[in-house]
Amino acid sequence: MCSIDNLPAQLPIEATEYFGDRLFPYVMEMLPSDATKPLEEEDFSPQVRDAVITSNGKLTPKFEYIQKLRERRESEQILKKGGMKRVLLLGAGYVSGPVIEYLTRDAGTQVTVASNLLNQAEEMATRYPNTIAVMLDITSQEGHLESLIKDHDIVISMLPYSFHPQVAKHCIKLKVNMVTASYLSPAMKELQKSAEDAGITIVNEMGLDPGIDHMLAMECIDQAKADGCTVESYSSFCGGLPAPECSDNPLRYKFSWSPYGVLLNTISPAIYLKDNQIVSVPPGGALLDVTKEMDFMPGFNLEGFPNRDSTKYAEPYGIESAHTLIRGTLRFRGFSSAMSGFVKLGLINTEPCPLLDHTASPVSWKELLCKQIGLSATVSNSVFEDAVYEKIGKDDFRMQSLKWLGLLGEEPVPHAETILAAVAKHLEAKLSFDKGERDMIIMRNDVGIRHPTGELETKHISLVVYGDPSGYSAMAKTVGYPAAIAAHMVLNGELTTKGLVVPMVKSIYSPVLKRLQDEGLQFITKSSVSE
Amino acid sequence: MCSIDNLPAQLPIEATEYFGDRLFPYVMEMLPSDATKPLEEEDFSPQVRDAVITSNGKLTPKFEYIQKLRERRESEQILKKGGMKRVLLLGAGYVSGPVIEYLTRDAGTQVTVASNLLNQAEEMATRYPNTIAVMLDITSQEGHLESLIKDHDIVISMLPYSFHPQVAKHCIKLKVNMVTASYLSPAMKELQKSAEDAGITIVNEMGLDPGIDHMLAMECIDQAKADGCTVESYSSFCGGLPAPECSDNPLRYKFSWSPYGVLLNTISPAIYLKDNQIVSVPPGGALLDVTKEMDFMPGFNLEGFPNRDSTKYAEPYGIESAHTLIRGTLRFRGFSSAMSGFVKLGLINTEPCPLLDHTASPVSWKELLCKQIGLSATVSNSVFEDAVYEKIGKDDFRMQSLKWLGLLGEEPVPHAETILAAVAKHLEAKLSFDKGERDMIIMRNDVGIRHPTGELETKHISLVVYGDPSGYSAMAKTVGYPAAIAAHMVLNGELTTKGLVVPMVKSIYSPVLKRLQDEGLQFITKSSVSE
Repeated sequence: MCSIDNLPAQLPIEATEYFGDRLFPYVMEMLPSDATKPLEEEDFSPQVRDAVITSNGKLTPKFEYIQKLRERRESEQILKKGGMKRVLLLGAGYVSGPVIEYLTRDAGTQVTVASNLLNQAEEMATRYPNTIAVMLDITSQEGHLESLIKDHDIVISMLPYSFHPQVAKHCIKLKVNMVTASYLSPAMKELQKSAEDAGITIVNEMGLDPGIDHMLAMECIDQAKADGCTVESYSSFCGGLPAPECSDNPLRYKFSWSPYGVLLNTISPAIYLKDNQIVSVPPGGALLDVTKEMDFMPGFNLEGFPNRDSTKYAEPYGIESAHTLIRGTLRFRGFSSAMSGFVKLGLINTEPCPLLDHTASPVSWKELLCKQIGLSATVSNSVFEDAVYEKIGKDDFRMQSLKWLGLLGEEPVPHAETILAAVAKHLEAKLSFDKGERDMIIMRNDVGIRHPTGELETKHISLVVYGDPSGYSAMAKTVGYPAAIAAHMVLNGELTTKGLVVPMVKSIYSPVLKRLQDEGLQFITKSSVSE
Repeated sequence: MCSIDNLPAQLPIEATEYFGDRLFPYVMEMLPSDATKPLEEEDFSPQVRDAVITSNGKLTPKFEYIQKLRERRESEQILKKGGMKRVLLLGAGYVSGPVIEYLTRDAGTQVTVASNLLNQAEEMATRYPNTIAVMLDITSQEGHLESLIKDHDIVISMLPYSFHPQVAKHCIKLKVNMVTASYLSPAMKELQKSAEDAGITIVNEMGLDPGIDHMLAMECIDQAKADGCTVESYSSFCGGLPAPECSDNPLRYKFSWSPYGVLLNTISPAIYLKDNQIVSVPPGGALLDVTKEMDFMPGFNLEGFPNRDSTKYAEPYGIESAHTLIRGTLRFRGFSSAMSGFVKLGLINTEPCPLLDHTASPVSWKELLCKQIGLSATVSNSVFEDAVYEKIGKDDFRMQSLKWLGLLGEEPVPHAETILAAVAKHLEAKLSFDKGERDMIIMRNDVGIRHPTGELETKHISLVVYGDPSGYSAMAKTVGYPAAIAAHMVLNGELTTKGLVVPMVKSIYSPVLKRLQDEGLQFITKSSVSE
């Protein structure tokens, strides 16, 4: 029956009775059915089986034509306007706003936003001109992904980096260009030849870090070399932070997405070059002990620690001459000490933890920590707190941090596969941005340059971006605009290098940095000289 | 001769010759004349004397009618549109923008900006609607001031506080209301009765500090009392600072106007109440030794020191019950230590210094400091620097600060009446805001409130405002908007209290704080509880 929802509608009683009579014989076999099982595992009569449209999250074989119909309708919508440049944006998260905003300024460009959260994509389509929302679950809709890519001139993938190779393979097959803001992973590197052969451009590392960091580094290094100088040291620190006025919590940190990665980074190993010595920081939290105060902008209360393997940048940056090469992460002072308490208590633990399984009965943070320390869960609070205090190096700030975050009390630990995942869920809830609060980005490069005269000049290059509480976050601007600018350059034929591309060459970084400044990103360069 | 400057113009040779012949006999007596002397001291013939229009910065008696003509024309311009509310704004400095912008949103309000710098006033008149620029030198044009006040409904004085009583006396005489952003000085207090008798309102302390500080304090205190609580402690710190991203200098400070007052404050005495003990800080720089780290917003690197006499606020705030009462100044960490070096070298000195007189030959900073320390000016640099290092307490940071600021070298000391004035001139040039840089305001009140239940609650009230590099500075917004809102309330009959008024009563602070929030000032209140 078709009805119109704002007009009165009634089914005639005879029709209801007739339908009920015909349905009734099948009700008993339908009742025990389980929609999470594949349809073929059900023991249905042909009548019921043929009537099931979706099962286990999929269209049943007889109804798969619906997806084809949908894709055809989607394709018609995408191709409706002739002469448009068509961008497929994968992901509709917080970075997507600036990407779409930048690209759709050109009335000749349209963007299709594909997300597994249709409402997020639709919100983007409502907000920006020439923007079409599409539902796409990349993990289950390989064919749909391919049919979407086919209709577009370029794909921008803002999905987690592990999805990029899958997307890239379709792009290579269909000869469609691609942009990502993620590190060029080994799995992507394997596609170099096939991308070249296909004659397409795949731009990688086109965000903030990686992205703007490379571009500012290479601009400075290339200029130094052009001036006949030698680069003797390179230090680059970057952090996404809450604006200082909303940093009042023990971690001096807030999260606009899952903190899992931020927490995991604190137990990573690191390696860097200092005065021609390789310094190796072992995994397991040693990073937090080498944290240093950073006072290059003394109004901020900053600290920094090294980030993964810095030494591998000597070659791509062309600064094998440097005696010091370090890339690091910026936080507000106190973060490392508080996190160190977490590490010492075994809270940054990626091993499976059956105690926190979805089927297990809830435990409190106190119970969990008692287990970690090896105490009985029935121990008194004062014995418990004394043991924690001992474990975290008798540090009052760490103790206050744990209390403030509710990690010593009766609050239940969220269900999760690992303790780290549970901590991440707990902190995401406790340390989110309030309304009216905003994030910020600080990036700082210090490049030591030896002039032919013997003079040692240090270039200090700074980028500070604040988020707009009623607009884009600083992270969204600094990740989204570089990706959008690169896509625009590929579409316009300004960037034509084939194969895998990173923004370390002048023909890319020079126009991109210029355009980022037009978007309000201020790169400030100062210089100091010593003999 | 009248001519039109973009058309060709010629004087007929006969007219030129005739004029020259008539002028020539008087040339010899005009040559030795001195325009900086009063006209009556010159020994002119009646012909020359009667031809002199201005002398010694004034119209000569025969031409004083020109000023009357001007004032009449000015008055006609001001009164041209009927039915307008008329505001006279004295001063066209950086705070004036937000004042005029706020008031002229109402198309029924017009603003006359009077300044001794006519181009500044004219710039305002160009930028805002219904705004008239007027040249006024208040030190010499008493009659002009009076004739201006007469034509207006309210006067906002943004002049230095010492001019307010002079302005107020005219306002009382002419029954015109008045607003200032300055402390209610003893000289102003003497006008209380005459202002009341005249039936006018004079609103004082209607800026940031004083102004917003009082309003936030009283809102919190009045509410606490209404809830049956007792205020046990009150601590309020405020600072105008560079945004942290542009704080990279030894003072971590920048100046958008003369630093004289900021420097002078560092040798002020201070008095405050702490745990029922009066704490007295003697003058001469002891303030800088009681500076404390302030970590209420840990992302900022703040320090604070007490500001003048805090104890006198117990009575007007109605918190005689408080055991702790302190008002203080915020700076970025390092300011006090660097300033302490200045004090130890005798650079914050307000005594007349003939060595720096305008007529004396220039001395270098090194020469001046040698004299201060008691060294011969010809001493070697290393002996000089050792002596300075000794004098400043062998502190490396202070030493670097002095070097960075060029205070140990051969740069000439600016001519000035005192060493402090010379330091102020020198720093104003060294520590000014670059293009694209901006200031910020941080204000923080912590109010300890004892509930009838015995619970001790602390209210933390914060205001953080950033300047807009292409718009108003944070200081302009936070000083200008309160003054403009108060003027608007007086004009509209919302604020009708007669006599001298400060914004410590609910009928004023409540609507003003609400409207400041509408202007984008975010007052954030958080609360913590201890037993």
